[in-house]
Amino acid sequence: MKIILVGATGTIGRDLQQALATKHDLITASRHNADTKLDITQPDSIWEMFETVGKFDALVSATGHGVFASLPDLRTDDFYEGIKSKLMGQINLVLIGQHYINPGGSFTLTSGILADEPIRGGTSLSMINSALHGFTMAAATELENGARLNTVSPGLVEGSVATIGASFPGHNPVPMHRVVNAYIKSLESALTGQVLKVYS
Amino acid sequence: MKIILVGATGTIGRDLQQALATKHDLITASRHNADTKLDITQPDSIWEMFETVGKFDALVSATGHGVFASLPDLRTDDFYEGIKSKLMGQINLVLIGQHYINPGGSFTLTSGILADEPIRGGTSLSMINSALHGFTMAAATELENGARLNTVSPGLVEGSVATIGASFPGHNPVPMHRVVNAYIKSLESALTGQVLKVYS
Ligand SMILES: NC(=O)c1ccc[n+]([C@@H]2O[C@H](COP(=O)([O-])OP(=O)(O)OC[C@H]3O[C@@H](n4cnc5c(N)ncnc54)[C@H](OP(=O)(O)O)[C@@H]3O)[C@@H](O)[C@H]2O)c1
Ligand SMILES: NC(=O)c1ccc[n+]([C@@H]2O[C@H](COP(=O)([O-])OP(=O)(O)OC[C@H]3O[C@@H](n4cnc5c(N)ncnc54)[C@H](OP(=O)(O)O)[C@@H]3O)[C@@H](O)[C@H]2O)c1
Repeated sequence: MKIILVGATGTIGRDLQQALATKHDLITASRHNADTKLDITQPDSIWEMFETVGKFDALVSATGHGVFASLPDLRTDDFYEGIKSKLMGQINLVLIGQHYINPGGSFTLTSGILADEPIRGGTSLSMINSALHGFTMAAATELENGARLNTVSPGLVEGSVATIGASFPGHNPVPMHRVVNAYIKSLESALTGQVLKVYS
Repeated sequence: MKIILVGATGTIGRDLQQALATKHDLITASRHNADTKLDITQPDSIWEMFETVGKFDALVSATGHGVFASLPDLRTDDFYEGIKSKLMGQINLVLIGQHYINPGGSFTLTSGILADEPIRGGTSLSMINSALHGFTMAAATELENGARLNTVSPGLVEGSVATIGASFPGHNPVPMHRVVNAYIKSLESALTGQVLKVYS
């Protein structure tokens, strides 16, 4: 398959790239060190990326940013920072990508456990991840030509314990290979409209 | 209780106003025909409303707009129209209102059944309603001074069958008094962080 991998240099993306590169024709996309330059916060950049890459069989997105802050400190602009990146950035990959994807192709996005289990300071991410779940369930019913859409919702991954683990008290870090498997399940199964939760 | 009712002139709001007015000190808020002018799409307007009203015991929001269109026709801007109104408009009522609410007060927002059951053309509303559910669950854990937050998720209400019923094939319209009861439950119980689903 010709697969666009958005965020291949990230914690999750690095392992995904390793797992997918042997079997598939991978095109990496992000702001730096990628086969094709992409900034998901800029819809024009997404259109350009698809124009450059042309038809493709699958898009996997392991990217997106949101703001952590306690509720009394959270401002409207903090929410919009995550909305422009992790939420609408990924939604735009589907909205725009639906016009370029091959029949029977698939989109796989990334949300996260905060959709189901809030942590202190994580309200804007809980909102965004839940939004991605609602989008996935609904948009999958209207994609044309057999295209599919799923979202992987990882728990705190092992590779991130050192950097952000302290914000996730009591969370059991998820082995990377289990997270990678969820993306492979979305890519190679017939599932659509599903949230693939990898919480342990 | 001193209750701010946002959207009191709407289909749901009218019945809410009737049910709450006898027992409580109601202040209605919306763009037209209200005790205090409010446009939830403008954060400045929300700050002004709270400055005018001062301390309050509960805020009930039965308002918010989003764009219906089939997935191939949906554009980024369509999503942002709903994000600015139903999603961030209601979230801003809480973000800003948390600095004015009395101890032990409550916020009650409105989402809808499309969070759980997509309809054709409803993808942006499924996204928004799910986002409100994630926000509710998470923000409720961080509100201070015993303030509570719940969201009522109505099915297609009886009062809207004539106007939008055709877009909801197979949906059983929900009697208005059952929807009103969910807001009363949120207002007068100790529940917090809950999505009160009224789907039949
Ligand atoms: N790590 C975890 O434990 C965990 C758990 C649950 C969910 N998640 C979610 O999984 C996703 C990936 O997480 P991660 O920890 O692997 O992230 P990460 O290490 O920060 O990597 C992010 C990747 O996305 C790219 N990227 C960032 N901003 C971009 C933009 N505006 N446009 C295009 N590409 C962009 C980065 O490359 P450039 O900077 O070069 O663009 C990088 O390749 C995020 O949505 C995160 O919330 C992570
Ligand atoms: N009706 C249903 O079957 C149903 C089912 C599930 C969920 N819902 C949800 O319930 C909520 C209310 O629905 P509804 O059918 O009762 O709506 P509606 O009849 O259209 O009434 C909307 C109310 O909100 C006010 N409003 C609209 N835009 C506003 C703004 N920017 N700032 C402040 N106030 C504003 C309106 O007054 P002004 O125009 O004067 O501002 C009016 O009072 C919506 O979020 C809707 O999605 C409805």
